[in-house]
Amino acid sequence: MTGKPKAKRPDSAPNGAANPMWGGRFGAAPADLMAEINASIGFDKRLYREDIAGSKAHCAMLMRQKVIPAADGAAIQQGLDRVLAEIERGEFVFDVKLEDIHMNVEARLQALIGPVAGRLHTARSRNDQVATDFRMWVRGALERTDAELRALQAALIERAEQHVATVMPGFTHLQVAQPVTLGHHLLAYVEMFGRDRDRARDCRVRLNECPLGAAALAGTSFPIDREMTARELGFDRPSANSLDAVSDRDFALEALALASIAAIHLSRLAEELVLWSSTAFGFVAFSDRFSTGSSMMPQKRNPDAAELVRGKAGRIGGAFATLSTTMKGLALSYSKDMQEDKEPVFDAFDSLSLCLRASAGMIHDVTVNVDAMARAADEGYATATELADWLVRALEMPFREAHQVTGRIVALAVERGLKLEQLDLDAMQAIEPRITAEARQVLAPIKAVEARNCYGGTAPAQVAAQVRRARERFL
Amino acid sequence: MTGKPKAKRPDSAPNGAANPMWGGRFGAAPADLMAEINASIGFDKRLYREDIAGSKAHCAMLMRQKVIPAADGAAIQQGLDRVLAEIERGEFVFDVKLEDIHMNVEARLQALIGPVAGRLHTARSRNDQVATDFRMWVRGALERTDAELRALQAALIERAEQHVATVMPGFTHLQVAQPVTLGHHLLAYVEMFGRDRDRARDCRVRLNECPLGAAALAGTSFPIDREMTARELGFDRPSANSLDAVSDRDFALEALALASIAAIHLSRLAEELVLWSSTAFGFVAFSDRFSTGSSMMPQKRNPDAAELVRGKAGRIGGAFATLSTTMKGLALSYSKDMQEDKEPVFDAFDSLSLCLRASAGMIHDVTVNVDAMARAADEGYATATELADWLVRALEMPFREAHQVTGRIVALAVERGLKLEQLDLDAMQAIEPRITAEARQVLAPIKAVEARNCYGGTAPAQVAAQVRRARERFL
Amino acid sequence: MTGKPKAKRPDSAPNGAANPMWGGRFGAAPADLMAEINASIGFDKRLYREDIAGSKAHCAMLMRQKVIPAADGAAIQQGLDRVLAEIERGEFVFDVKLEDIHMNVEARLQALIGPVAGRLHTARSRNDQVATDFRMWVRGALERTDAELRALQAALIERAEQHVATVMPGFTHLQVAQPVTLGHHLLAYVEMFGRDRDRARDCRVRLNECPLGAAALAGTSFPIDREMTARELGFDRPSANSLDAVSDRDFALEALALASIAAIHLSRLAEELVLWSSTAFGFVAFSDRFSTGSSMMPQKRNPDAAELVRGKAGRIGGAFATLSTTMKGLALSYSKDMQEDKEPVFDAFDSLSLCLRASAGMIHDVTVNVDAMARAADEGYATATELADWLVRALEMPFREAHQVTGRIVALAVERGLKLEQLDLDAMQAIEPRITAEARQVLAPIKAVEARNCYGGTAPAQVAAQVRRARERFL
Amino acid sequence: MTGKPKAKRPDSAPNGAANPMWGGRFGAAPADLMAEINASIGFDKRLYREDIAGSKAHCAMLMRQKVIPAADGAAIQQGLDRVLAEIERGEFVFDVKLEDIHMNVEARLQALIGPVAGRLHTARSRNDQVATDFRMWVRGALERTDAELRALQAALIERAEQHVATVMPGFTHLQVAQPVTLGHHLLAYVEMFGRDRDRARDCRVRLNECPLGAAALAGTSFPIDREMTARELGFDRPSANSLDAVSDRDFALEALALASIAAIHLSRLAEELVLWSSTAFGFVAFSDRFSTGSSMMPQKRNPDAAELVRGKAGRIGGAFATLSTTMKGLALSYSKDMQEDKEPVFDAFDSLSLCLRASAGMIHDVTVNVDAMARAADEGYATATELADWLVRALEMPFREAHQVTGRIVALAVERGLKLEQLDLDAMQAIEPRITAEARQVLAPIKAVEARNCYGGTAPAQVAAQVRRARERFL
Repeated sequence: MTGKPKAKRPDSAPNGAANPMWGGRFGAAPADLMAEINASIGFDKRLYREDIAGSKAHCAMLMRQKVIPAADGAAIQQGLDRVLAEIERGEFVFDVKLEDIHMNVEARLQALIGPVAGRLHTARSRNDQVATDFRMWVRGALERTDAELRALQAALIERAEQHVATVMPGFTHLQVAQPVTLGHHLLAYVEMFGRDRDRARDCRVRLNECPLGAAALAGTSFPIDREMTARELGFDRPSANSLDAVSDRDFALEALALASIAAIHLSRLAEELVLWSSTAFGFVAFSDRFSTGSSMMPQKRNPDAAELVRGKAGRIGGAFATLSTTMKGLALSYSKDMQEDKEPVFDAFDSLSLCLRASAGMIHDVTVNVDAMARAADEGYATATELADWLVRALEMPFREAHQVTGRIVALAVERGLKLEQLDLDAMQAIEPRITAEARQVLAPIKAVEARNCYGGTAPAQVAAQVRRARERFL
Repeated sequence: MTGKPKAKRPDSAPNGAANPMWGGRFGAAPADLMAEINASIGFDKRLYREDIAGSKAHCAMLMRQKVIPAADGAAIQQGLDRVLAEIERGEFVFDVKLEDIHMNVEARLQALIGPVAGRLHTARSRNDQVATDFRMWVRGALERTDAELRALQAALIERAEQHVATVMPGFTHLQVAQPVTLGHHLLAYVEMFGRDRDRARDCRVRLNECPLGAAALAGTSFPIDREMTARELGFDRPSANSLDAVSDRDFALEALALASIAAIHLSRLAEELVLWSSTAFGFVAFSDRFSTGSSMMPQKRNPDAAELVRGKAGRIGGAFATLSTTMKGLALSYSKDMQEDKEPVFDAFDSLSLCLRASAGMIHDVTVNVDAMARAADEGYATATELADWLVRALEMPFREAHQVTGRIVALAVERGLKLEQLDLDAMQAIEPRITAEARQVLAPIKAVEARNCYGGTAPAQVAAQVRRARERFL
Repeated sequence: MTGKPKAKRPDSAPNGAANPMWGGRFGAAPADLMAEINASIGFDKRLYREDIAGSKAHCAMLMRQKVIPAADGAAIQQGLDRVLAEIERGEFVFDVKLEDIHMNVEARLQALIGPVAGRLHTARSRNDQVATDFRMWVRGALERTDAELRALQAALIERAEQHVATVMPGFTHLQVAQPVTLGHHLLAYVEMFGRDRDRARDCRVRLNECPLGAAALAGTSFPIDREMTARELGFDRPSANSLDAVSDRDFALEALALASIAAIHLSRLAEELVLWSSTAFGFVAFSDRFSTGSSMMPQKRNPDAAELVRGKAGRIGGAFATLSTTMKGLALSYSKDMQEDKEPVFDAFDSLSLCLRASAGMIHDVTVNVDAMARAADEGYATATELADWLVRALEMPFREAHQVTGRIVALAVERGLKLEQLDLDAMQAIEPRITAEARQVLAPIKAVEARNCYGGTAPAQVAAQVRRARERFL
Repeated sequence: MTGKPKAKRPDSAPNGAANPMWGGRFGAAPADLMAEINASIGFDKRLYREDIAGSKAHCAMLMRQKVIPAADGAAIQQGLDRVLAEIERGEFVFDVKLEDIHMNVEARLQALIGPVAGRLHTARSRNDQVATDFRMWVRGALERTDAELRALQAALIERAEQHVATVMPGFTHLQVAQPVTLGHHLLAYVEMFGRDRDRARDCRVRLNECPLGAAALAGTSFPIDREMTARELGFDRPSANSLDAVSDRDFALEALALASIAAIHLSRLAEELVLWSSTAFGFVAFSDRFSTGSSMMPQKRNPDAAELVRGKAGRIGGAFATLSTTMKGLALSYSKDMQEDKEPVFDAFDSLSLCLRASAGMIHDVTVNVDAMARAADEGYATATELADWLVRALEMPFREAHQVTGRIVALAVERGLKLEQLDLDAMQAIEPRITAEARQVLAPIKAVEARNCYGGTAPAQVAAQVRRARERFL
């Protein structure tokens, strides 16, 4: 019924000529529909830098190994530089009939330097070429992700340091549970993003093997030097098995998995920002930079950026599902199904990057309502555990019994509509006669927070130490 | 490390002004990053036709209800027609600062006809507007899907008719099981795609309620006529609850689910085409139009289109996972997370359309190697069941006993390296003395096929009847 | 490292004999590991009723068609009744060596009535048998789902009726947007669950074709009456193509998809119950029946049931992902991969049933804090839109201009820390001189609610009408 | 309609008493339905060893820190040993009213040693307890997975060594592409499973931080020694932030992600085994131990184990989708939704273990048909690339030109129905006059294989070296 305004597909293109690259044997031109489903240039042009770098390294190696004459190699190298410059200047015309980035680059090279360009494809195939390009792209994406995660950690650590002693309610089941400090809460995310960075680094190490030289699937009979191309392109080593090198995409799956997990962490932070900025909580207010208004309700300050971060977790996880399903049950070695590997990866890392940068911006900009947090920490009987712990410590009561006693006292307070510390001592003693006035002193939220002074706990002193360690570990 | 060549993001845009649509209360401009994450115009411009149609219907209704003066309404209508024409001619400049299609259209309308354009947004909100636009788009996509499924069925039925009596091996566990006819096999897919069409139609019926008038979430205080706008836009009725109308996207989820199921059906057909065109099977050959060559191995004829159809099943299923995760656990009513609803739906239906058209093309073009199929049907002891059934019929042996006897006879044939019909009668009788020469006559594949003459079975007469009924039901 | 306490696997079972059902040709016993991965009886025993009903119908048909003698048929029928009774009384011993429910039932039948039991498997195969059993199970699950959805709708409608005029804040982006009524909000879910029921009914209609008679894949050479068995088992007709009948599981995928969508609806209701029962919102309190305490914090009343409902949405959606991936790219006809179809379906519908019943219970039991809702509706400038609409109506201002004016007035109120209705008229008139005292009368939440009196809107009169219509349509 | 035979739910249990563990404040018993949705003991009893080990370590630490008296601690330790012994002997009665493994163990401890058991829960909560138990379980599962992956690698390496020089067709797009050796092909999987082991080890390192001491969420005020409990339970260190420790489940997601990726690798191997054992390919035959027969077709030898391995990839990937969706958007800290974390992990690792063991068994047992492989490698013009490479080497032709020439020669051979090496020299020279007899010598598959002698290539010498290195790296 409706179409994209831009996507005017030629229904009967006069595409008379056979594909110039693999057409030796073929009589008729591929159907236009085939071009539409088959061509990847629409998205794999993003690999142009990696593709040209790979070709230059391959060419240099072929020259040194005397597989191609020095003069031809030099012409190829210069030609590739020109192609790169044309693309970067936006002058390059990508041609869908040339299918992919590899053929687009090579065809232009041929136009620039003539038939000698045909020597470049010696001892390689598009199968090892694309595996190399794509690994390099994912490697770069992981490095960028690491840097963006680090920037988000920096924003969190900075805010945590400002709020090592800011008391807020800690929640379980979204119920007020025990008072914590805002600094402590923010540092929980620093830990999560630290593990995300770790995963990105592990993935980068694991993927950093160079497929070049695997050729179509079986290696090549030319006397190539795989160590040289690997080194040149920043890989740690050539891949050990040529069939594996062109057949697997586990590096992309692993990258998507870690992106998904990071996105889940981000979605949780975003959920909290949405909650905290609601009228009911009122813990934080967004800057104008990260909220929007409503076309209908002029008073609204909508946490759109946080909502979009939360929503995009679905998309990034969907990318893992997409590629998993596509790869499942494929016989070796290369199958065209695997052309579907790039779009989910591109989209997931674009989305993740947006989410990371937006989250860092929100954390940096958000205004904290310290009073609202403190008020909320004083509600909901958040310090009942303190009383139970006091019963254990002071009366040597087994914890389970202390828990029962505290439960009865809370029930009484609820019944009378009082806070725990407002309940008078007589009422408490009617339930447990040995309770003394000292017990009531542990019930202030700040006392409760200060008491949790174990390693990793919420006491300001602990949180300050966590901030210090986090700076050392992550920044 | 690498970026898209085309996506030059302005890192420091001089975006000094507050958003003109909802900026009354806001002091500062949204961050560029915010524009990047927040703007949807990059993809929701595909809704331009639906958006303008919706606005025209809304305007007509406001005029008839006297909510806006007739002259103003007429100016708006003419202005909207001009905007539509500009977009269709490719002259419209979409502006990312205006966020989405709704604001882009309205801003242009205002430029064309002045402040009276501001009357159009009376008694509506972007919340009901986008819900209406998107429903209309999905409705159109479902109609297109139905037509494309029908075309694929037509191609299958045509080929099935040519091959009602072409014997091929039927497989279970990819092992040769019993002979079937190619026509019968192809008609199995006609049934599957028939159910897919049914699902698309059910979804279309269910979604066809008009959200217009729900406004932001609660309805409006203007005296609108929701029946009129619903009718005008081809909806069956207005939606019954305004909160539901702007909050739910189950129609999109249902559409994605049925697209996923259809894609799975397509992936199975594609798998078979890949298998059948392999050297080992050799059952079919693709036309040049739907296969490609190899840059390295000139002899190859790769079933790329089939592989891509198979691979894209992952992507379409991933879209369902994406939107499901995004919608999960969202409080009512509209949340910005829901802006993530469109891209997976657009991508899934674009992909599905490609797969459906490519599959129809492949089925239409593919060359069947009838001899290779016949030869394969004669291997693998495919007619052993015939013998077991003969034992049941002729000797009144319980099936389980007949099964045991047949198993022993097959084992003997395997041992001697013979086909079942090559085993002499003595050898059979050594296992079961009552076997007669008649038993051996049921072992020819064509006999086996002809015998399966029950409703829905593989006998040519049945298949011919199935073809006839399929034409009536589906074409 | 750790094992299940119950799952003591025999590591060296003295499983000397070949499988009695298909072992005719096989020399050695399947590996224990094979039994472990291959046997489905651990879960498919849930199909016992369907399996026996199917066998009885098949036997009755074979008798009427004279394929098996009447006396043998009668013995089989009585034997099957005894097997059923044994299972229902819990006396039946399921044997993993017999692989699945079909073989367990048949082996027991043979033990009870002797070799004549072997006649039952004439003209069928486990392939059509399991397809029939599973369709019947899914059909039953859909019927149960429909009933449970209806019960949840009944609970919602009942509560909605009590609260047709209870004012609460309506939210967008979790920000207070406009006042709505609780009845209106609850009825939004009634609509959603109504569509879920519709989907379940459509799926039930579509799946209700009987595979029996498809046999292994190709139909059978015995003179069976497929109409008779279909009718007997409550199917609308026999399936039209035998290959399709044993190969496809789209009915299970469709059932999982609709279960996923219903689970997403449930997760949204659960999210709201969690939010509303939080200290910050305080809109509702759970009964003891649907909340739990904390082992550590005696004051807690945790909304566990709501959280579990929300969490299980992941699991139900995961089941769709599971089966989609498993089915993707499988060549026809039956492959053993398809044995993986049942567990996700069983688990998803068990989970959905729990969630539906728990949700109905929570809605029925929950205590509403009407005052807290009213207070919240009076915060957050929820009636700003009323002012904008008044400007349009009374002053004939274009909406966009009215929106700008209102935005400036709200900004002023925020600046002064006042509610909109507390802002004095002079202050308003300083921004827009034509504003009169009448304008301020529209700002009370109840007025705002009453004004939204369009079809589907939140006005109590509309909500009461919606309740009436919902009763008629759904109960 | 149908129910599970075993799961007789008591619809009106006389469950009069409040939950004994957290019931201090509650008046009424939880609904039976609540018990059904809330209780986790049905699955978390698998954690009994980890739970008791954790309790013993916690108790020992409390004793040393003088938080509980030595005598009480000793009684607790002995009591816990008795509980463990009862469970291992199968004598322990798990009680669903006690909700989970923690409460079941503690209640039994109390029955055995009296109220002093109540001291054990000092300074901890079920939140840190379950996080600790579950991490330990996942750690064990990863170790088991590593060992099972290693065993599969061992089976593959052994078979690869036997077949370093066995020529088979290498496939791209399932088309015969170039000859490879079977050893080379099998070693591709050794590489994949090597990376899977690496991922498991990285995950194990990352997760190995001890949550104990985080208590409910905020740490504890008792003077605990977190280093001691961490060390005792084999953790590398205590977790650095108590909120993070109880809130996150990324370790489970990471484990599921790597299990999914390994399952995809397994599904590809399984797909190949299914293909190779088909009549069309005939490359391998399964042992009786890993194939099954058919109830209908006695001649069948179905590759059920391979199909189930292939199918279970869907299930394992579904588990990642399940837990991802469940965790998405959850506010900190613990929410009950997270109780849904265990079942997908248990199921995924049970399934993965089955698949790994079955795959190792199949690889070990499978019979290779060396002749069929050799024959297939000689079809499909698999050595056309050799000719192209010869043209480059001998005639210094640019590769692209060589490719065109070879394409024309192959087309001629196809036209004449000849293999490439059967085409006479004249015919070749008619296309390219400089071709000599030498060119034809490169066309034998074994020559082609031997020529691919680069690092990672398919030449027998290379494959032998790969075998050697694989033994060193992996076994």
